[in-house]
Amino acid sequence: MNNTTSLLIIAHGSRREQSNIEVANLVDKIRAEANEEYLSITHAFLELAEPNISDAVDVCIAKGATHILVVPYFLSAGRHVQHDIPEEVTIKQAQYPHVSLTITPHLGSVPSMVETLLSMATVQE
Amino acid sequence: MNNTTSLLIIAHGSRREQSNIEVANLVDKIRAEANEEYLSITHAFLELAEPNISDAVDVCIAKGATHILVVPYFLSAGRHVQHDIPEEVTIKQAQYPHVSLTITPHLGSVPSMVETLLSMATVQE
Repeated sequence: MNNTTSLLIIAHGSRREQSNIEVANLVDKIRAEANEEYLSITHAFLELAEPNISDAVDVCIAKGATHILVVPYFLSAGRHVQHDIPEEVTIKQAQYPHVSLTITPHLGSVPSMVETLLSMATVQE
Repeated sequence: MNNTTSLLIIAHGSRREQSNIEVANLVDKIRAEANEEYLSITHAFLELAEPNISDAVDVCIAKGATHILVVPYFLSAGRHVQHDIPEEVTIKQAQYPHVSLTITPHLGSVPSMVETLLSMATVQE
């Protein structure tokens, strides 16, 4: 239990609204599963959709977050993961020096991805 | 154990070679973890990189696959998942009527994604 930590999941964002809704629905499930382990669990989009990262960080801090874990919902460590998300986070960190913002490794790099993909195949057989 | 089933993981493909290598490395790990449970475990790219889906299916069948499980390594059910991958698979299915090709749900829709994202946060705290 760490009730001043917010989880902020960053997706790319799409012109196709259903893709953005898919992210929002996933984050709703994460919130239900986490069972108030975090102050807040929300999402933001890097581009093409709202809320953007800056506004979402503002909301976390308005709720009382002292620590924000930024989770890149991205499969590869491309420009968005290596440059764009860190740049946005650096700007917000400068704006809120009393809050710590941490970026986790991106989704595609987590060790459990191996098991996740194998389980996708097993279900179908 | 089903030694005539091949697993074929489909990623988008990137102009950035390191992103394609990231997929190949993940598939190497899946192959090691699966411990010869499948005839083959390989990857293909929908666009921008090689191998493409058509060639990768040919290789599975040349190795003796009678069943190919196509796993979309995609986060959202956009055009690529809903249209482009099924279209490619339909073409190959018509070419090889004696082989069954099955597309699994896409990565972003698997239930374990909730736990995966929560675990990413926990590691960082």
